[in-house]
Amino acid sequence: MTADMNRQWRVARYPKPEELIGKAHFEWTSEPIAKPADGQFLVRTICLAPVPAQRGYLEKSHHSFLENLAIGEVMRGRGVGQIIASRHPDYPEGSIFVGSLGWQDYSLQHPRGAEFVFSTKKIKNPLRPLSMELGILGQAGATAYFGLLETGQMKAGDNVLISGAAGGVGSAAGQIARIKGAKQVVGITGADEKCRWLGDELGYDATINYKTENVGERIAELFPDGIDVFFDNVGGDILNAALGNLAMHARIAICGFIATDYSPGPHHGPINYQCMVYKRARMEGFVVFDYWDRYAEAEQDLLNWHNEGLLKNTEDEDEGLENMPAALASLFTGGNIGVKILRVSPDPDVLPQEKFK
Amino acid sequence: MTADMNRQWRVARYPKPEELIGKAHFEWTSEPIAKPADGQFLVRTICLAPVPAQRGYLEKSHHSFLENLAIGEVMRGRGVGQIIASRHPDYPEGSIFVGSLGWQDYSLQHPRGAEFVFSTKKIKNPLRPLSMELGILGQAGATAYFGLLETGQMKAGDNVLISGAAGGVGSAAGQIARIKGAKQVVGITGADEKCRWLGDELGYDATINYKTENVGERIAELFPDGIDVFFDNVGGDILNAALGNLAMHARIAICGFIATDYSPGPHHGPINYQCMVYKRARMEGFVVFDYWDRYAEAEQDLLNWHNEGLLKNTEDEDEGLENMPAALASLFTGGNIGVKILRVSPDPDVLPQEKFK
Repeated sequence: MTADMNRQWRVARYPKPEELIGKAHFEWTSEPIAKPADGQFLVRTICLAPVPAQRGYLEKSHHSFLENLAIGEVMRGRGVGQIIASRHPDYPEGSIFVGSLGWQDYSLQHPRGAEFVFSTKKIKNPLRPLSMELGILGQAGATAYFGLLETGQMKAGDNVLISGAAGGVGSAAGQIARIKGAKQVVGITGADEKCRWLGDELGYDATINYKTENVGERIAELFPDGIDVFFDNVGGDILNAALGNLAMHARIAICGFIATDYSPGPHHGPINYQCMVYKRARMEGFVVFDYWDRYAEAEQDLLNWHNEGLLKNTEDEDEGLENMPAALASLFTGGNIGVKILRVSPDPDVLPQEKFK
Repeated sequence: MTADMNRQWRVARYPKPEELIGKAHFEWTSEPIAKPADGQFLVRTICLAPVPAQRGYLEKSHHSFLENLAIGEVMRGRGVGQIIASRHPDYPEGSIFVGSLGWQDYSLQHPRGAEFVFSTKKIKNPLRPLSMELGILGQAGATAYFGLLETGQMKAGDNVLISGAAGGVGSAAGQIARIKGAKQVVGITGADEKCRWLGDELGYDATINYKTENVGERIAELFPDGIDVFFDNVGGDILNAALGNLAMHARIAICGFIATDYSPGPHHGPINYQCMVYKRARMEGFVVFDYWDRYAEAEQDLLNWHNEGLLKNTEDEDEGLENMPAALASLFTGGNIGVKILRVSPDPDVLPQEKFK
């Protein structure tokens, strides 16, 4: 299972605006496994999580929150791994580690903070599966947590709508809204199977299948008093429909806009932003990286909720580093239920804390 | 000058979405002047201020912040007048009064609070011209004040952009931004004459004529570090251009969207709302009515600034109640510089406080 060479996906070309990202934009290469210098350690990748924002690393655009990757660079991406060689006293061999491992089998690392996507962390008491550190206990969970509770200022009694509800972030957001006492949590997704899962497994009060239902009419039916908080992963017509059905002083947390990320343009913005005046509503963009200082707060809550059985972890796992471009593409075609995870190597048989039991 | 009958503009029909509002939507009627009952007083209208929101009173729409007017009702509108007969001890004859007088020569009034548009006020020490109570010391000034400083959270050192900059609200907003220590105040308007006035008279640092210049390019040139606060009266392409040039943590205060209020559709929203994620920006709609409780605060600041010569009053006055529909229409065709005022009768020769000097 462990390769003797370090296999890597490197950036080959940038996608055109309307193009679905995939294998054609990456080059599959390999090189010898590097050795850690003083202060470094070598991590073997266990799993990676593709996220929609990764497409943005391959866009030449004035709209970006991270530096674009150059052609030939190893693709950036967060992952969980195990330290297999170390020249850093605080990061001993055997430790479980989360950080920007890149799309590769092995990476040299050193401790980093500052920005979520680059930040590194040694996990003291990792839970199985380790991939949860990329999902509900990691970036997906924290994005949902801060977007819903900080940007969206969701309070008990609120009527909450979530788009992209069956994705990694959306499925966490809906559960957190339930935990925090929402009056009603409604999820929008694109398949009846996903709608059933949201209702039966995650406790959503109602769902809308945007492929088969009239989203605007259904929102109006389900929210006779209007939407208090809309957590939007999607944009496009769904955002517009939501803006037409706001409650007074509504909050719209803009997490992403996957609806327009590669579909043919021209794309238009939501004309119903005008309703924000009538409803004195607020729309705000956020990026989870900004909350790195407060990550411990989210982590503790997410972990407690998970341990209490209130926050379920659902993963949609693909296997094999060679399938990473396809795993990323699947996010844009609605392929996943829950957090998309790509397994690169198995979870270790014995975790560090189990050694000393 | 004073009519023996009460002349009135009543609602005759609702404008179609793309139709410019005007005389055709109102009926010119007259009736005997009413007599105050106990607790009431009779006000003679001195002047009225048409505002773009008045068009909305004639729209059957789920988007509204005030009840629509029925066909046949006297058109709603704020004005300044003098009390000429009174059966209310606190509102003696001769007092200067601001309230929802309607588009008519005379109205029966009683004290009202709660909402700005309906609220009434006896002016203790009215300044000349009395129309200032509708302009920089009244609704226009307060809209600029709360929109810029509360919704927009403008702080000293901010780069500020204002659309509809030569209008009643816009011209007040620009001056307030200067008073509050903006690093730069840029105004967008539709005529070179207005641009010159904004620069020469009101102290705007730069202006953009949206009819002759490329707004997006000019904004990018003038805001190399991005816009911190955008006070938007206009919407449409101008809003989209501004959203493409935001600074980190920018605030967009949505006051109105006159660009799409009667122009042929379909209208699209601003696709650059997506930049609000990259810039962690916030867009918020507001209505000045909501700040009625805090009006005294704005009033005191506005009055002080005016007395210190920092906040200039500029009015664009039309004369004659019969011209009120045309005065309202002119707001949508960019006809005014400063606060649009319609004079119905002259300011009194002697003001109440002057009697006792």
